[in-house]
Amino acid sequence: MKKYNPLDPNFEFRIKESFSRQTIMNSIGAEIKNVSPGRVEIEMPFNKNYCQQNGFLHAGVITTIVDSACGYAALSLMSADADALTVEFKVNFLAPAAGEKIVAIGEVIRAGNTITIATGEVFAYDGSDKGKQIALMQVTLIKSNL
Amino acid sequence: MKKYNPLDPNFEFRIKESFSRQTIMNSIGAEIKNVSPGRVEIEMPFNKNYCQQNGFLHAGVITTIVDSACGYAALSLMSADADALTVEFKVNFLAPAAGEKIVAIGEVIRAGNTITIATGEVFAYDGSDKGKQIALMQVTLIKSNL
Amino acid sequence: MKKYNPLDPNFEFRIKESFSRQTIMNSIGAEIKNVSPGRVEIEMPFNKNYCQQNGFLHAGVITTIVDSACGYAALSLMSADADALTVEFKVNFLAPAAGEKIVAIGEVIRAGNTITIATGEVFAYDGSDKGKQIALMQVTLIKSNL
Amino acid sequence: MKKYNPLDPNFEFRIKESFSRQTIMNSIGAEIKNVSPGRVEIEMPFNKNYCQQNGFLHAGVITTIVDSACGYAALSLMSADADALTVEFKVNFLAPAAGEKIVAIGEVIRAGNTITIATGEVFAYDGSDKGKQIALMQVTLIKSNL
Repeated sequence: MKKYNPLDPNFEFRIKESFSRQTIMNSIGAEIKNVSPGRVEIEMPFNKNYCQQNGFLHAGVITTIVDSACGYAALSLMSADADALTVEFKVNFLAPAAGEKIVAIGEVIRAGNTITIATGEVFAYDGSDKGKQIALMQVTLIKSNL
Repeated sequence: MKKYNPLDPNFEFRIKESFSRQTIMNSIGAEIKNVSPGRVEIEMPFNKNYCQQNGFLHAGVITTIVDSACGYAALSLMSADADALTVEFKVNFLAPAAGEKIVAIGEVIRAGNTITIATGEVFAYDGSDKGKQIALMQVTLIKSNL
Repeated sequence: MKKYNPLDPNFEFRIKESFSRQTIMNSIGAEIKNVSPGRVEIEMPFNKNYCQQNGFLHAGVITTIVDSACGYAALSLMSADADALTVEFKVNFLAPAAGEKIVAIGEVIRAGNTITIATGEVFAYDGSDKGKQIALMQVTLIKSNL
Repeated sequence: MKKYNPLDPNFEFRIKESFSRQTIMNSIGAEIKNVSPGRVEIEMPFNKNYCQQNGFLHAGVITTIVDSACGYAALSLMSADADALTVEFKVNFLAPAAGEKIVAIGEVIRAGNTITIATGEVFAYDGSDKGKQIALMQVTLIKSNL
């Protein structure tokens, strides 16, 4: 991926503080990992309380963690007085969300003055080190002043 | 909206049985309402445990209920031996998800032999009868044999 | 659809002047029709020079006229010093683009200060008065100052 | 990108034959380049007859070449008796389409039995060797039997 220079050197602290205010992340057991400029990972364990009718994680939960991963990837490149809001996203679901652990990776494709475009990938892990891709997101974010 | 003739007269029972297996719906307090051929409503109360950083419901929760509303709208027109799976969706977020109650409405636009296209609208209500639209979804579903 | 009050009473003139500068519209034979606040129609004849491999109009041509229809629907509600630019769109293709005439209708769903959301429908006509829907678009536009 | 094994060793011939039947490609001056398993490039010169109101190539033309690039990338992995049809796509526009030459690259992300997911990138070149990315597509295709 591209190399980005963050505008705010304190971006990681700012992202983790914001993440701690997303109550949904605590409810579903998600944690933020590996924050770097333009790239953020969020992971969650499989959780039988957030499934669809066939016992796989619901598409909405997969979307939740990859939307936040992309949002924080966008936020990592913004100035300290800004917030990143999702304008819209599109997600393709490639395989059922089964396994022990789900990892969402958000990466910035283009960071503009107002609009940021990011892509998100979601992988399911089941014991082994090699994940299986289960979703692909393309998302548009807008910079909002705090 | 268009008038549809369901292939399976038992569609409402089938949808409600499937909904009862979506454990996420119980976790977030969502209920299925007003099932008719090609159209399904799901509503949930505002819930402070599923919010983003500013205290609004997370986009992923909004997506969860409108995805299921569209999925069950698609299922309402399928034969008794089929399931409806989400291939992909796109959601625009129009306003913050605040208020007392959120209602998602899924409607089928075209029901093909393999692929179904639906649209979803989400409204937030705050005491009054008149909701405010907060999201718009366009979704592609595929028929899967049980 | 919703009733909108245009900010610029001269919106129709402004839209038609902009349309006349879209050289692609002349190349494919498209014409702008029925401009009203928040809603614009563009139509084109079937044209064998803009087809895909099976002799149907290419998805990119369908997208061209419905993108412009949505863009001008958005522009109809903007002030006289603004232009509407497409941030992104998503299009589902419902049926092959055959027939004598293709009509794209763009309608604004929400006109914000910066971001406008619109939907587009495309219909194919073959002699009769009743068109067949061939595409559905959901699009995000941004206001740009001239 | 991933390594793919084509089902039909004759895939390049089959793709170029299909491309030659897309009359729109001849009309806009597009050519197919660099066909490999799961990846196809299409390029076109800037053409003042296919512009929007500000003299940039219309989003619909950009979409045309990247849709076909993704479609042929999908087709490269299908059996000889299949065609690839676009179910839907989503495109973000990152920068105005100016320059001398536009190159669209389509790559398969997942090739399933029925559904294929691909992504497309579009670059504008202006003399130099280094292109500027102007668009990003995420597309869903379906296998159709000839």
